[in-house]
Amino acid sequence: MEQDFVVGVDIGGQTTKIGIVDRKGNVVSEPHVIRSDKHTDEYLFFDDLIQAIDKLIAETNTGGKIKGVGIGAPNGNYYDGTIEHAPNLTWGGRKTIKVAEILSEKTGFPVTLTNDANAAAVGEMTYGAAIGMKNFIMITLGTGVGSGIVINGQVVYGHDGFAGELGHTTAVRYNGRQCNCGRVGCLEAYASAIGLARTAKEFMESHVDRDEYNQRSPLRDINGPITSKDVYMAAIQGDKLSQKVFDYTGMKLGESLADFVAFSAPQAIILFGGLAKAGDLIKKPTEQSMNENMLSIWKDKVAVIFSKLPESDAAILGASALAW
Amino acid sequence: MEQDFVVGVDIGGQTTKIGIVDRKGNVVSEPHVIRSDKHTDEYLFFDDLIQAIDKLIAETNTGGKIKGVGIGAPNGNYYDGTIEHAPNLTWGGRKTIKVAEILSEKTGFPVTLTNDANAAAVGEMTYGAAIGMKNFIMITLGTGVGSGIVINGQVVYGHDGFAGELGHTTAVRYNGRQCNCGRVGCLEAYASAIGLARTAKEFMESHVDRDEYNQRSPLRDINGPITSKDVYMAAIQGDKLSQKVFDYTGMKLGESLADFVAFSAPQAIILFGGLAKAGDLIKKPTEQSMNENMLSIWKDKVAVIFSKLPESDAAILGASALAW
Repeated sequence: MEQDFVVGVDIGGQTTKIGIVDRKGNVVSEPHVIRSDKHTDEYLFFDDLIQAIDKLIAETNTGGKIKGVGIGAPNGNYYDGTIEHAPNLTWGGRKTIKVAEILSEKTGFPVTLTNDANAAAVGEMTYGAAIGMKNFIMITLGTGVGSGIVINGQVVYGHDGFAGELGHTTAVRYNGRQCNCGRVGCLEAYASAIGLARTAKEFMESHVDRDEYNQRSPLRDINGPITSKDVYMAAIQGDKLSQKVFDYTGMKLGESLADFVAFSAPQAIILFGGLAKAGDLIKKPTEQSMNENMLSIWKDKVAVIFSKLPESDAAILGASALAW
Repeated sequence: MEQDFVVGVDIGGQTTKIGIVDRKGNVVSEPHVIRSDKHTDEYLFFDDLIQAIDKLIAETNTGGKIKGVGIGAPNGNYYDGTIEHAPNLTWGGRKTIKVAEILSEKTGFPVTLTNDANAAAVGEMTYGAAIGMKNFIMITLGTGVGSGIVINGQVVYGHDGFAGELGHTTAVRYNGRQCNCGRVGCLEAYASAIGLARTAKEFMESHVDRDEYNQRSPLRDINGPITSKDVYMAAIQGDKLSQKVFDYTGMKLGESLADFVAFSAPQAIILFGGLAKAGDLIKKPTEQSMNENMLSIWKDKVAVIFSKLPESDAAILGASALAW
């Protein structure tokens, strides 16, 4: 029987998405998501994951036709098939987990693994906004900030397989925000969904009653922690404070992008993930800040574009592509 | 007659070095240097350069045996053979100069050109400290700060040929020093020979009579502008202020290197150029700062090493290698 399908797995800090993908890049299974943050023991998570994979194979009647499993995961190492010291995973911190080896043993399938953002970049190159591009940088703006760097048509893995951790380059050198990774001032602490919500909180605290725009922000009427989605909803409804939060986030992101351009001189920056759904609210200040901060040789020459893959499938498609 | 020699040309902000190189990587001509900063018109500089090349060919009796000319130059574009908007060249600012085309016409030789730091990286890979390395970053600490990035054994040129301008990534985001490129806070404004001298000046001004180490710095007895060499000489003779200047320079460089590692996860950082001659004075604080600022996955795993090519020949050898 021909092996005409692969399994794509996108492990995120909060949830893990799983899909069965055919040779043409169609996700043939129904959308399926499990929690990533339910366990502190990786084996319990693997049990949930394998159960989900088995269920999808049964539902799609692809038993015996699966060629392999491709996984995108934070701190995923392409060379070793491991997840190492992933600060955003409840079961991933401070150790090396042999994901590919363990899952391969348990499922009988070959398992290939990479950084979730690298996987998204592969998906973008194969089916999305980067078709035909040889040099681009994919920035994933989700719970964290990830990146997949493509140079000469190849994903950059580096000497050890961990290259492309642009979310953990320094956005603010001194007195920066604490990052999940234990360091301070990382881009991720500013340009992630969590970073954006944090900016909103800071902006609200610095304007106690009414804000400087003489407009009471609807964010003040939200019970409990403010999310990036709350800020987005308020911003599109005209809330000046929320719009300013996006401006600030884009400014920080653009400053960092200007430095990334000096490294690999890409044709384009591709924005992907939750915050990218904010459209021009995030793109315009990002683009402006990037151009203001770049060497003159690159000004207005590097495109900032959005992913062209459906958000829920991009990482799955990318991860799955590794398995062919 | 066989074409057994190439011409290597290393264009720097102040001087240009020229050499005739054989197939084994020996510079067979006597050391030859011309000024780069004598003219504001590129054609006058080209005349000086061609005269020098002709002289060396005559002296080495290699007429008719020259295969081509390889050039390393600031803002040199490998794809187009041009120098574009080079802020450190008296004749290079704010325009695109078709160096390869013009020189090829005038000399009759094929001319290939790249960034001077990229050329040095090629030289290092072929004859020096990076033999066998597939992923490394060469940092040139001269008048400016340049870089040659090698990933998967290939020099990174990027979409437009200008990749690897790490001297113009941001070392200090706000209230940073003015850089030659017109922007502020660039690494080059801190970690170049000129940046180091500037740090010395600042440190002296902040301690009006005696410095905080209760020791009068010999730098105070120097007439005229202090050079990086003055600081080096004072530092090795025990001057605490000068040593502190190297510590500060290494700290800034290490902070930036930590971010570069997050990009391409190299096996090693290779230091090259004038400041690298200061040895441990610059290497130790650089290494310490880099390790303090990196993600835990890279701590103590990325080597900081010195170039193994003689400084005067590295860029010539690298540039010449392009011409084979």
